[in-house]
Amino acid sequence: MLLRATPPHTFTHTLHATSDPQPLRVWICSQRARSVKMPSYSWLLALYLAALTGNTDGAVARESTERNCSSTPPSEYIAPRDARLAFMTGFTGSAGTAVVTLNKAALWTDSRYWVQAERQMDCNWELEKDVSISSVAQWLISEVPKGDEIGFDPFLFSLKTQEDYNINLESSDRSLKSITENLVDKVWKERPSVPPDSLTRLPDRVIQRTWQEKVEHIRTQMGDSPYKPTGLLLSALDETAWLFNMRGNDIPYNPFFYSYTLLTMDEIWLFLHMERVTEELKVYLNASCEGALCVQLKGYDTILDHLKNYVTRPGVKVWIGTEYTNYALYEVITPQDKLLTSSYSPVLTTKAVKDETEQQILRDAHVRDAVAVIQFLMWLEKTVPEGNQTELTAAEYVDKCRSKQKDSRGPSFGTISASGPNAALAHYSPSKETNRRLTVDEMYLVDSGGQYLDGTTDITRTVHWGKPTEMQKEAFTRVLMGNIEISRTIFPSGTRGVNMEMLGRRALWEVGLNYGHGTGHGVGNYFGVHEWPVGFQSNNIPFRAGMFTSIEPGYYKENDFGIRIEDVAVVVPVQTKYGNNYLTFDTVSLVPYDRKLIDTSLLSSEQLHFLNKYYETIRSMVGPELDNQGLREEKDWMLRNTEPFAEIGSSASVSSSSLTLIALAVALLHNIV
Amino acid sequence: MLLRATPPHTFTHTLHATSDPQPLRVWICSQRARSVKMPSYSWLLALYLAALTGNTDGAVARESTERNCSSTPPSEYIAPRDARLAFMTGFTGSAGTAVVTLNKAALWTDSRYWVQAERQMDCNWELEKDVSISSVAQWLISEVPKGDEIGFDPFLFSLKTQEDYNINLESSDRSLKSITENLVDKVWKERPSVPPDSLTRLPDRVIQRTWQEKVEHIRTQMGDSPYKPTGLLLSALDETAWLFNMRGNDIPYNPFFYSYTLLTMDEIWLFLHMERVTEELKVYLNASCEGALCVQLKGYDTILDHLKNYVTRPGVKVWIGTEYTNYALYEVITPQDKLLTSSYSPVLTTKAVKDETEQQILRDAHVRDAVAVIQFLMWLEKTVPEGNQTELTAAEYVDKCRSKQKDSRGPSFGTISASGPNAALAHYSPSKETNRRLTVDEMYLVDSGGQYLDGTTDITRTVHWGKPTEMQKEAFTRVLMGNIEISRTIFPSGTRGVNMEMLGRRALWEVGLNYGHGTGHGVGNYFGVHEWPVGFQSNNIPFRAGMFTSIEPGYYKENDFGIRIEDVAVVVPVQTKYGNNYLTFDTVSLVPYDRKLIDTSLLSSEQLHFLNKYYETIRSMVGPELDNQGLREEKDWMLRNTEPFAEIGSSASVSSSSLTLIALAVALLHNIV
Repeated sequence: MLLRATPPHTFTHTLHATSDPQPLRVWICSQRARSVKMPSYSWLLALYLAALTGNTDGAVARESTERNCSSTPPSEYIAPRDARLAFMTGFTGSAGTAVVTLNKAALWTDSRYWVQAERQMDCNWELEKDVSISSVAQWLISEVPKGDEIGFDPFLFSLKTQEDYNINLESSDRSLKSITENLVDKVWKERPSVPPDSLTRLPDRVIQRTWQEKVEHIRTQMGDSPYKPTGLLLSALDETAWLFNMRGNDIPYNPFFYSYTLLTMDEIWLFLHMERVTEELKVYLNASCEGALCVQLKGYDTILDHLKNYVTRPGVKVWIGTEYTNYALYEVITPQDKLLTSSYSPVLTTKAVKDETEQQILRDAHVRDAVAVIQFLMWLEKTVPEGNQTELTAAEYVDKCRSKQKDSRGPSFGTISASGPNAALAHYSPSKETNRRLTVDEMYLVDSGGQYLDGTTDITRTVHWGKPTEMQKEAFTRVLMGNIEISRTIFPSGTRGVNMEMLGRRALWEVGLNYGHGTGHGVGNYFGVHEWPVGFQSNNIPFRAGMFTSIEPGYYKENDFGIRIEDVAVVVPVQTKYGNNYLTFDTVSLVPYDRKLIDTSLLSSEQLHFLNKYYETIRSMVGPELDNQGLREEKDWMLRNTEPFAEIGSSASVSSSSLTLIALAVALLHNIV
Repeated sequence: MLLRATPPHTFTHTLHATSDPQPLRVWICSQRARSVKMPSYSWLLALYLAALTGNTDGAVARESTERNCSSTPPSEYIAPRDARLAFMTGFTGSAGTAVVTLNKAALWTDSRYWVQAERQMDCNWELEKDVSISSVAQWLISEVPKGDEIGFDPFLFSLKTQEDYNINLESSDRSLKSITENLVDKVWKERPSVPPDSLTRLPDRVIQRTWQEKVEHIRTQMGDSPYKPTGLLLSALDETAWLFNMRGNDIPYNPFFYSYTLLTMDEIWLFLHMERVTEELKVYLNASCEGALCVQLKGYDTILDHLKNYVTRPGVKVWIGTEYTNYALYEVITPQDKLLTSSYSPVLTTKAVKDETEQQILRDAHVRDAVAVIQFLMWLEKTVPEGNQTELTAAEYVDKCRSKQKDSRGPSFGTISASGPNAALAHYSPSKETNRRLTVDEMYLVDSGGQYLDGTTDITRTVHWGKPTEMQKEAFTRVLMGNIEISRTIFPSGTRGVNMEMLGRRALWEVGLNYGHGTGHGVGNYFGVHEWPVGFQSNNIPFRAGMFTSIEPGYYKENDFGIRIEDVAVVVPVQTKYGNNYLTFDTVSLVPYDRKLIDTSLLSSEQLHFLNKYYETIRSMVGPELDNQGLREEKDWMLRNTEPFAEIGSSASVSSSSLTLIALAVALLHNIV
């Protein structure tokens, strides 16, 4: 699934909403909040809803991209209780920033949402269209009197966002003021509460490292740090979930729960909604003791007080990952020498490398997921020509196929089911208004994924049930070439994705085509479908063996069609002739591509060979699972669609120049005989 | 010619010494300086000689590079009067930092120079081996009492260096203190003076834009800036030289002269050593009037006073490029709202794109340079087997060949002439101690370049006069494949070099080989051979049509041999099937590669085709020039060495599988007949 392409010069480091909804997006107080007792500075409301994520600083320069796919991916979801922008403004789009002064209120959102925002907001709201922080800051400077302060909720601002606003307001004599009491919440009477569901722990069969082992491993890294941190603060929701092998249900499509962790060398403080912790879970967490491997459970809302308190202890130093820590927690860690920062916490970088069990179960989940997708593609092939399928019925069906698979826990994001011109909107999600009937005359793109107890999946296939044009075939083949070129490349351990991702574009560039989104993102083990910090973007960490990433080049022709080919792959060691410590990718998504769209004459012999090997793997991995599940028709469909392609120089084929020679030889023979 | 590979985490932005010797490398005061009246804080001497440059953050992760070529390239030269480190310490190596406290003196230099430094320094000097700023800072913290200040010459520190020290000294209660009076100079009685040579202007035939046109173009950019700068300060030596189409001789191998420029919307102040300006040059510069296109000449040493003065004017804002401005100038531009910063000044980014005349004359210079290199290679081929040539005689000879070419202005850097194991040291320069005899048993690498009135050249060829091993052939061929893959790639305008440079490594990676230096750097028009900000490093600007860069992958086998293939190429527009605004490279270095070292079976058909087209270009471009110069033997040598290689599917050849078919057909014929 795609990452949003952010405009240049806005976020160079961004936040990943699904891993941490709290540190994001609200800068706040409101006109209505004036009734609340407030200090005398000017009051502003900036709601920054938006699960903004991911920076697609790829190899491609922005001004030269074919199109601007600056949409927010539908998977960057937030809980209903965090949907403050919708509550305040009426606007329900997935990305926006709002500011309220004593006299005015304005909303910033991008081009996708301009029409919708105009419709949904009343006339008290101005709509602003340049969503960069500098544009918001310019507006603030023009509206807020000199010397005034601008309130924001520091739990909803990342360090980086706060810093960006500060830079933009620099020497304007206006400044940000952190207000920990959220003023929207004060007037939001019907604000949804935290889901009452109990939290769960993962079963042993999907765990290699117990939480105690993980804690000790992280403590070792703390001890090894030359900066000698005494505590590690975990803000991102998936950090705590990973550390304790626990899951929750607070965010749509993402098995996270509201939490913080403060891990010291001899204490563990876990902040959550205590009423959701069962007795069994308390036992699991050793919650009744007080040793180095006993978890002290604390109320979710007490984090700030406990952290303040901890910081007053002499000689402490708190390690935070700046990419995921909210400003509220950051600002209490003073003085500066009590703070140790890195972009990502050691939990995130450790989690990025899957252990053996995680790798194996993620592969297993992809085999079952392939069965579901094969079932779905076969069903489309049969039913679309009958004329009754639409983008929406297709999206429902793929969810249904997945739900029948073992350990299914629902989709990992809202399916992108897009036909014809709708697919040219890279982040399109079907709705009643936009829903298109699927036909043999249009290309169809489906980007979908599942949550399973053992893994998270994400796959995109583009198909055509009729006769594709030459241009469609060429574009599809070149997208496939990009996918293959990344997948088969061999590189030294520690190479950064951003420095390789042009391989996904090169075959397109050759004929002047391109795409405007990133080329891939990390994927979790029953976690976020966009799992940072792995991937091909400029703020991703270098690749190591055991990391999982999507590989997803595409091409989009406005008002016509869209192509994307996405697979998940694991980084694996490879033996080279002369050197050690080299890596390559092993594709774990196991669904064939539409043969009708592949022009094999464009592929190099290496690419053809790679494709045939991949198809062999599909047969050997998915074939037995289809047998197990008794899916005979699907097995036949899979076998038909994974027939090996003729390779140059192989016994199955000869190159065109060789064919000429054969013809010549035959002609000679005829003449002579 | 190579750029230095800096260790990770030291310089993320670095300075380019040849373009600007002043902002660099001294942090200063001295024990002896105590006799000078000084404030009461502790005194330290930090000499930071070293023309340090270039950050090779390429696609490859550092820990996985094959070797550490962290040597300073010999072209990053400084004038003798700036060689303060040698004067103070006795150490004459090209890179180092020195610090003097009241009790101690220490020098930091990298592994290349440890032995030399131990020999050259007396026992009062400690040798320190970790050259990172954090290591120097650690030493300072241990040696300097709390509360003390550390003196440095702000003219010799870049903003970035100052900032890096500050970060490393943060919360240590020790701080830097800028001292504009250089204390080494105060005790350096015999300090060489500025060369008395008059400055020169370029002849009209190598100029497309007059200095007046350039000034107006830059002023337009100032006017277009939303930040409304009123003045532009140029610190880098090549900025001023470019703007006024002037040259000097102050730095070895580089036609620069000591200067600064302050350009406002209606004034031009040029700071230089006035006694070097001839009457003719005064006329050329309109030095006698006072309008917007009249140059007001000011003494070189008055820059600080004039800048201070300018900054006191109301409403002014001075634009500086942070990569090249020294701390001395930066610190007087206060308050903050009088300052506008960008990484590079508009002069540097404008200069990076060569105009039509500059492109054409640079191409012409490369044709003559090719004649010299061909002459040289042919001479080696003839004389090496006789046994009398050495690395040093070869280096002399290549200089001699160039000096005979029209408009020659000497070498553009000290030639790297390296045989056998010496070539495995990527930045090796021959000396009496290391000089090796050239033989038919060793590979030989020569990296050299020339200054011509119309351009600067830089080329590396690796040859073998005997029988190379299979491994040598494979490595050479894979380096060549890297060179070709970058050269032939098509990419959108604005793509960053760092995101494409893995193409130079990919064929090597495939078999577990790699190289530890950058893949290319900008090249000037009778300017620096390393001309920033163009190139393949992370702090280079995106590629645009009209930029020149070197492309220079390599491979180095310790104690055995070294391979590098370097060409200069210009970025040119290319017509693609579907898209506009795509670019590719056009190679302007025109010297054939050693055929003996090319294993064509490794090349793809596209690579072979590219190579043959390149050889055709050499024939058509260099052939006539060889004729003109009456160099018949050289012409024959060139023709022999540019014979087309057999291409798959071409009439000249068939692929191996086709050959089998022919054999089969012939066998059939024989049987039948």
